[in-house]
Amino acid sequence: MMYRIAVLPGDGIGPEVTAQATRVLAAAGRRFGYEFCFQEGLIGGIAYDATGQPLPQATLDLCRSSDAVLLGAVGGSKWDNLPVHLRPEAGALLPLRKALNVYANLRPAMVFPALAGASTLKPEVVEGLDIVVVRELTGGLYFGDKKREEIPGGQRVVETLVYTTQEIQRVARRAFELARKRKKKLTSVDKANVLESSRLWREVVTGMAREYPDVEVNHMLVDNCAMQLVRSPKQFDVLLTENLFGDILSDEAAQLTGSLGMLPSASLGDGVGLYEPVHGSAPDIAGRQLANPIAAILSGALMLRHSFGLEEAAAAIERAVATVLEQGYRTADIMEPGKHQVTTTEMGRLIAELV
Amino acid sequence: MMYRIAVLPGDGIGPEVTAQATRVLAAAGRRFGYEFCFQEGLIGGIAYDATGQPLPQATLDLCRSSDAVLLGAVGGSKWDNLPVHLRPEAGALLPLRKALNVYANLRPAMVFPALAGASTLKPEVVEGLDIVVVRELTGGLYFGDKKREEIPGGQRVVETLVYTTQEIQRVARRAFELARKRKKKLTSVDKANVLESSRLWREVVTGMAREYPDVEVNHMLVDNCAMQLVRSPKQFDVLLTENLFGDILSDEAAQLTGSLGMLPSASLGDGVGLYEPVHGSAPDIAGRQLANPIAAILSGALMLRHSFGLEEAAAAIERAVATVLEQGYRTADIMEPGKHQVTTTEMGRLIAELV
Ligand SMILES: CC(C)[C@H](C(=O)O)[C@@H](O)C(=O)O
Ligand SMILES: CC(C)[C@H](C(=O)O)[C@@H](O)C(=O)O
Repeated sequence: MMYRIAVLPGDGIGPEVTAQATRVLAAAGRRFGYEFCFQEGLIGGIAYDATGQPLPQATLDLCRSSDAVLLGAVGGSKWDNLPVHLRPEAGALLPLRKALNVYANLRPAMVFPALAGASTLKPEVVEGLDIVVVRELTGGLYFGDKKREEIPGGQRVVETLVYTTQEIQRVARRAFELARKRKKKLTSVDKANVLESSRLWREVVTGMAREYPDVEVNHMLVDNCAMQLVRSPKQFDVLLTENLFGDILSDEAAQLTGSLGMLPSASLGDGVGLYEPVHGSAPDIAGRQLANPIAAILSGALMLRHSFGLEEAAAAIERAVATVLEQGYRTADIMEPGKHQVTTTEMGRLIAELV
Repeated sequence: MMYRIAVLPGDGIGPEVTAQATRVLAAAGRRFGYEFCFQEGLIGGIAYDATGQPLPQATLDLCRSSDAVLLGAVGGSKWDNLPVHLRPEAGALLPLRKALNVYANLRPAMVFPALAGASTLKPEVVEGLDIVVVRELTGGLYFGDKKREEIPGGQRVVETLVYTTQEIQRVARRAFELARKRKKKLTSVDKANVLESSRLWREVVTGMAREYPDVEVNHMLVDNCAMQLVRSPKQFDVLLTENLFGDILSDEAAQLTGSLGMLPSASLGDGVGLYEPVHGSAPDIAGRQLANPIAAILSGALMLRHSFGLEEAAAAIERAVATVLEQGYRTADIMEPGKHQVTTTEMGRLIAELV
């Protein structure tokens, strides 16, 4: 069986971490007898520098004709002053999500036993933490009309937030299905006391709950959720929310673990899936062998699971990561006294060997 | 000198905590020679039950003719299924903010030395924490048009987010002035990589920074800010942000302290100010002498400072609160082994006596 994987290294530490992720995927392929074919494409600032476009048509074509996409990271201050549509984020990442129609973004926040001390929260609050934020990724304020106009005394911006029943249903279905495979607890997060879109969101999720009698559903306001994540994060299993709330809450949840360099993500639609580490392009440490490749490597594991259904190979990668940590190997970002510090490449090699 | 204070106890624990706040204000008046005249008005669910309106015209008239407003809390599940415009939150709290045009909401999050252990964060991360979120309170998605329509296969909601230069300027000015009186550090939070309103926000704040050369200004994306609050909250002094981001971030910041029952807020415009505890109406503990009145009492102190300019009296209340805590008195929510548990009323009396 042959799987075609589009690899978009992007900017900053993107190339370093995707290199280790593909190395580990290749090792998993050898071990379990699958063939992975990697094809690189340009995205982000580096694509703009090379072609004048942050998301060249050739990259889009490559993604669409692949079985899955592995993305490193995009962005850097160098490109922050370009016109919005040429910037790495608004000009590449968002259009790519829209083009692939990956409406469900899964962001796990889990605390690895070996790294519980890395959190700024007390150990008893985060030990064993294992939650997933399911974020709607192709709607809401992100993709609404934006208009700026001159008015007396200054300017005025009007932007729109749109959600439809169907957009809510399709992402909610992913969250229900995921909860079913986990602890069967779904918390839908909204701002229904203020926003009409949140009231529609709540109605749709409530309606669908009847189809999933085995899943315990509750609704929580986004401000309260931001609190509860700090107060007692282990109360959650799957969190379901709209695009902008998901952006904020998934980053808050990620930071609870204290080790952002460990966290993968999967963006799923009805076609090609997009996999990327939760961390950014970190230009300050790029090219110095300091980056942690584990988030990218675990994104590869999610690809095997969600896009290819290769559960055994996915689990093997995840076990290898856990083992390497237990053996005391650490990249700079998670280094502690008494552990062995390794480079980006060494970490990738260690994990690949164990797979 | 006579000050007229409108008191709106509202629902749940609102009446219990405002009663202690007015007792402490009265004590401060006696001590420093000011006269406070309290007049009660109906708001929230209790107002709806009594008059059919969550924000009766008489209450609005009372507020407008007072020098400041002290609010307890509104809401409770009893009123959650009313039509939106009759609910305590959307039908009373938001219209009251709009009617008084209190566009700048100040929400301090500070850790009291005696209560550092209450946080779920490690003591070294939060000890000495003292930040203020300045939240825009009368614009953005909260007050934009909301439209729901039928479409094939379901419904569609469109809501709008509007900000103008002038709306941003007036709240930013409050934040700059506040920073100037504190550690002279202002972090403006937005989502400028995605939202046009955030780009306008950033431009306006950047432009105003020139008028405040003594204040160090930086800009941070909201998702990163949600992380940084968990990672190292003490990096912040004043956080400035729009309405919805402020709702989420101020609650997250409040929870970092671990003692929500301690946190006051001030909502300021160019006229009458509105003061209220950050906590909600907590119907589950209402009427049982379990509520912590300190947030309401400290809201009274903020009123003295911001609406009346009575700094000495405000500081006396704040010192009294600190002293009572040092003496080991605790309400149920902040009780620890070895301390003396007191009721809502006792806590109010202890603080009033010390003022
Ligand atoms: C870079 C930015 C546009 C993006 C987002 O807001 O979605 C990022 O924060 C993320 O969460 O993937
Ligand atoms: C009750 C609700 C409408 C309100 C808000 O969102 O502003 C509350 O959460 C607050 O922060 O004061």
